[in-house]
Amino acid sequence: MVNVGIVGASGYTGGELLRLLLSRQDISVTLATSRKHNGEYVFRVHPNLKSITTLKFSNPSIDNIAKSCDYVFLAVPHGSAVNLVPKLLEVGLKVIDLSADFRLKDPKDYEKWYKFKHPFPDLLEKAVYGLPELHFDEIRKASLVANPGCTSTATILSLAPLVKNNLIDAERIIVDVKIGSSGVGGSPSIFSHHPERTYVVRPYQVASHRHTAEVEQELKRISNKNVKIGMTPHAVDIVRGILSTSYGFTNEKIQLSQIWHAYREAYNGRKFIRLVKDVQGLEKLPDPKYVVGSNFCDIGFELDERFGRIIAFSAIDNLMKGASGQAVQNLNIMLGLDETTGLLIPSLHPV
Amino acid sequence: MVNVGIVGASGYTGGELLRLLLSRQDISVTLATSRKHNGEYVFRVHPNLKSITTLKFSNPSIDNIAKSCDYVFLAVPHGSAVNLVPKLLEVGLKVIDLSADFRLKDPKDYEKWYKFKHPFPDLLEKAVYGLPELHFDEIRKASLVANPGCTSTATILSLAPLVKNNLIDAERIIVDVKIGSSGVGGSPSIFSHHPERTYVVRPYQVASHRHTAEVEQELKRISNKNVKIGMTPHAVDIVRGILSTSYGFTNEKIQLSQIWHAYREAYNGRKFIRLVKDVQGLEKLPDPKYVVGSNFCDIGFELDERFGRIIAFSAIDNLMKGASGQAVQNLNIMLGLDETTGLLIPSLHPV
Amino acid sequence: MVNVGIVGASGYTGGELLRLLLSRQDISVTLATSRKHNGEYVFRVHPNLKSITTLKFSNPSIDNIAKSCDYVFLAVPHGSAVNLVPKLLEVGLKVIDLSADFRLKDPKDYEKWYKFKHPFPDLLEKAVYGLPELHFDEIRKASLVANPGCTSTATILSLAPLVKNNLIDAERIIVDVKIGSSGVGGSPSIFSHHPERTYVVRPYQVASHRHTAEVEQELKRISNKNVKIGMTPHAVDIVRGILSTSYGFTNEKIQLSQIWHAYREAYNGRKFIRLVKDVQGLEKLPDPKYVVGSNFCDIGFELDERFGRIIAFSAIDNLMKGASGQAVQNLNIMLGLDETTGLLIPSLHPV
Amino acid sequence: MVNVGIVGASGYTGGELLRLLLSRQDISVTLATSRKHNGEYVFRVHPNLKSITTLKFSNPSIDNIAKSCDYVFLAVPHGSAVNLVPKLLEVGLKVIDLSADFRLKDPKDYEKWYKFKHPFPDLLEKAVYGLPELHFDEIRKASLVANPGCTSTATILSLAPLVKNNLIDAERIIVDVKIGSSGVGGSPSIFSHHPERTYVVRPYQVASHRHTAEVEQELKRISNKNVKIGMTPHAVDIVRGILSTSYGFTNEKIQLSQIWHAYREAYNGRKFIRLVKDVQGLEKLPDPKYVVGSNFCDIGFELDERFGRIIAFSAIDNLMKGASGQAVQNLNIMLGLDETTGLLIPSLHPV
Repeated sequence: MVNVGIVGASGYTGGELLRLLLSRQDISVTLATSRKHNGEYVFRVHPNLKSITTLKFSNPSIDNIAKSCDYVFLAVPHGSAVNLVPKLLEVGLKVIDLSADFRLKDPKDYEKWYKFKHPFPDLLEKAVYGLPELHFDEIRKASLVANPGCTSTATILSLAPLVKNNLIDAERIIVDVKIGSSGVGGSPSIFSHHPERTYVVRPYQVASHRHTAEVEQELKRISNKNVKIGMTPHAVDIVRGILSTSYGFTNEKIQLSQIWHAYREAYNGRKFIRLVKDVQGLEKLPDPKYVVGSNFCDIGFELDERFGRIIAFSAIDNLMKGASGQAVQNLNIMLGLDETTGLLIPSLHPV
Repeated sequence: MVNVGIVGASGYTGGELLRLLLSRQDISVTLATSRKHNGEYVFRVHPNLKSITTLKFSNPSIDNIAKSCDYVFLAVPHGSAVNLVPKLLEVGLKVIDLSADFRLKDPKDYEKWYKFKHPFPDLLEKAVYGLPELHFDEIRKASLVANPGCTSTATILSLAPLVKNNLIDAERIIVDVKIGSSGVGGSPSIFSHHPERTYVVRPYQVASHRHTAEVEQELKRISNKNVKIGMTPHAVDIVRGILSTSYGFTNEKIQLSQIWHAYREAYNGRKFIRLVKDVQGLEKLPDPKYVVGSNFCDIGFELDERFGRIIAFSAIDNLMKGASGQAVQNLNIMLGLDETTGLLIPSLHPV
Repeated sequence: MVNVGIVGASGYTGGELLRLLLSRQDISVTLATSRKHNGEYVFRVHPNLKSITTLKFSNPSIDNIAKSCDYVFLAVPHGSAVNLVPKLLEVGLKVIDLSADFRLKDPKDYEKWYKFKHPFPDLLEKAVYGLPELHFDEIRKASLVANPGCTSTATILSLAPLVKNNLIDAERIIVDVKIGSSGVGGSPSIFSHHPERTYVVRPYQVASHRHTAEVEQELKRISNKNVKIGMTPHAVDIVRGILSTSYGFTNEKIQLSQIWHAYREAYNGRKFIRLVKDVQGLEKLPDPKYVVGSNFCDIGFELDERFGRIIAFSAIDNLMKGASGQAVQNLNIMLGLDETTGLLIPSLHPV
Repeated sequence: MVNVGIVGASGYTGGELLRLLLSRQDISVTLATSRKHNGEYVFRVHPNLKSITTLKFSNPSIDNIAKSCDYVFLAVPHGSAVNLVPKLLEVGLKVIDLSADFRLKDPKDYEKWYKFKHPFPDLLEKAVYGLPELHFDEIRKASLVANPGCTSTATILSLAPLVKNNLIDAERIIVDVKIGSSGVGGSPSIFSHHPERTYVVRPYQVASHRHTAEVEQELKRISNKNVKIGMTPHAVDIVRGILSTSYGFTNEKIQLSQIWHAYREAYNGRKFIRLVKDVQGLEKLPDPKYVVGSNFCDIGFELDERFGRIIAFSAIDNLMKGASGQAVQNLNIMLGLDETTGLLIPSLHPV
């Protein structure tokens, strides 16, 4: 039995970790922290867990975490994990950090994109970027996994085979992201107020989204090329889900079969990648509707010969493959288990 | 390994049965029929099942079903099961029928509510009404289970303790139902056309909903009293989910504790019933939002002393506890398994 | 040219008043107050008004209001209008108060339902309940109009003819209300947070909704009978709109034609009442979808002879006929204009 | 009084024309045709028009149209207008055609994009592309106006100033479109079935959308340059509305002020264009939510200096500025009226 703790368990990613871990026979959730809800039943904040667990939130403390856990998930806001992680590592814990605090390798990127000087540049080197489809072996041996961002996960997975195989101009990639409201987390504001958040297609951070840094970093690492991503997110009227649409210019005349080949080679045997490009049926190209609640990443594409571009689509559930599902996938790998353990959950149809 | 077949597997309840059964280690889905989609992969109709199964739809025939199944689910329209069931029973199959064709005990009720003369009145006697919280022991021994309707399930479960304990006037019960769009099944029409079905609160069959017959039948059986239900459904802008709000007049002065007592006694140990009546937290009274994808029935209530009424709420996912989840619960019971096997799935939060 | 001011113009009802009044040739909006947004363009809070007006919010003060207005709308929270109104009346203004502070005639009702002692019981007598279909003549001569609540408007309009004509038992009326998210106003909370407010059918204030008091008051006044209303509201996943479903027990055997007669007689010539009871077409019974943005109240009904009940439906846009549209209707009447001036706006189809 | 007819009045654009025209004092709608609904009240198909009109649908015939109308709107499917238009022109009618049949100047474009040989190439020359912000003077004198497509309107309006002023590389423009469900019209299918159409972000016609031809044509005409558009539409979970996000590569280093200048110059005095680029308020960049029901086109932009791209956004209501609103704007111009007559309707907030 592996003992795991969740720091920041009252948010949506924390709740999703609980949903996934509480049904596991091989795992014991020994700790779910929340300062705000200390002492309260978790099902009051996550009503889906009523009759599933009688766990209560507790206050976080290094001592408590060290005492009760082998593995700990940090589901805290960006900037809160950075000082916690070294202390947790020091007491011998394995850490899966869902924040952005250890995702970037270059400390300068934190100054550029996150506007703060990273206090532990050495840990940035040690941390493994937790995208199993790219870094499986490193994750297995990691003591600190930096769990990727949601839009980054979707975008990297759809672009990596194209960039690696030189099918598109890596310095002129346009990424148009559509994302549901759960991406903002559980804190209400006028922009998430139902009357204002319903019926929107609302662009935001249109030239400055911080996940851009992760995407460029990972695509550079996989291709040893300079990569430039122009990412623009849009809030749409769904709760869970991301569709990332990437546009790449083809350098020369290519065939559709080359694209198929690139994707098949990259994701051969990867259980959570589904290539979706059909001429029949309800899902002809990726659509977040069909991954809600699952850990799948649906990837599809089209070649626009007239224009000279490849359009690559990827759909994920931002709380699953985009956060907590992927975090559990990383845990499985760290534990030496099959990475799909407890995660081959089909989505709901319809939802 | 138990071999099960699903007749009518291309509809929403058929798809939901597949979702629940395909992940079971102790069950093999040997047959999923659809005349319309014969030969096609089921994931083209149920995209959530891509990478979960490579099963294909086949044409239904008694021979095929008999040869390959021990248990068979009928997820066919009302009127289609009635002639199929006797043939399936004859070849020794156990049948769980999700249609309305064997739910009513009195053949006259079919003439009254469904406008047809039932050809097998003897089978109506033999069939067991598949609401495990009321008929567990009979289901265990049944060869034909008539799986309840969705609004009936929600309504009966919230009213049974009140009627049984004589807390409300059984002859003047008002039931106001709110239901999602998946309740109509997978056949498009102008009334389910997205631009017309979005943003609605649309009353329909306001004085003639056929599930009324089941509700009255079951409440009569449990209380040995005359029962009269005035049920009025409304289509609301969700996909899955039912909230049934029942209004009962209190015959005399009663205490809140009596109501608590009635519910606790009725559902003590019943894993799929959650009593929801809280003063804190997100779900203070039942809301279908928090049961989507799960087999739970959330039940809550309030006593309006000023007016002299009890308000009883129950929330279910119409495709789960309202159809396929309950059907699998019935299968579990028929197989002598714990009724919750494969069904203690928490809902998604948020969804 | 009539000069009108709006106190509390940054909320949804304030914004709706602006939308309706800014297009009028005979009216000049001289004042739109908001402490929070003082000095800001109104279109920053109400983006629909961009290019329609360059009006800015100002701070409210009796002097300013007195100086610049003939008529003033109060679109402030309950409890805020009560002390403002006497001062406005004193300086000779005509007041249309959208809050609940002057709707109830009996001061004791404020203690019972609103938990405060009303400081101006004499003004309660003077105030006219601003439901034009019931109190047209009084409104014409009023200097203080108490604009009805949204659920009250819908419910009273559908029940008045039934109660007045003795068609139902007035002491056992059940009212089940479904309401959109704009009803809570513009202040965010976890309960209006998009991920939590989407996909709900959420009961609230199930035995204690304060609009009950207005409904009982008005139905008593019209019928000279004791009236008892059991009202239970449910939040549903739309933004604008209310459907009020009322259930009344028929005292004796009645005919459908009697109900038709009662409604026709009550609302003959009333432009904003549409009787909707059709066997064909998209709207067979009232549905808020088809009144969004309009001042119509769609009323329909059914007689359930088997059960002995009348089901009465009414659909309104809570911000229009349920608040600001009705307030402008009242203004028109006070000004001696046709009550429909500027208000015969069709809803959008589809929306 | 101008007599106008609507051929194909039972669809959404036909209904929207009725909504806009029936409230006009200077216009009489003498004819609303629908073969399917011949003889029926229009309000049965467009319930928003109940109590607004008692008009009935009639069968279309050239005689009838000629007899009763001066101006006629064609709101029929693509391919149906092409043979009707010459006959209507012959009898001296002025025609505003909402279909695509006369939008393209080059007959070869019909073979390429619409797969049919256009039978009246001479009329293509005569037809005026009905985008008033570009072709005001021609529209005034036109007898045949080809009303633009919805995605074309949004995209052309946001790109024209950039292409004309040489601010972006005209041969590498990426356009990512998000569109509501009313865009498909009123015919149900499994893809518009509410359970399947809700919660989607569904790419379709990702490299072959036919509106691409219009966009390229108009941008070429305005700039005398070769233009290449890669347009990719996505269905999102709203009913009305389009957001078109265009990505253009800046040829050289440019300043934000140049972009402002280009837009201001292009749309100075154009009442239906709102430049939306704010640092405060609810709408900081265009969002279709805030144009629903109005004829505005909200345009905004951002300069991404790091990447070297301009991101241009435009939001319209596809049934208004994207179809019927624009058609009425064209009628106004043809009649010599102020183009905004009857069209300065603010959107609803919230909706």
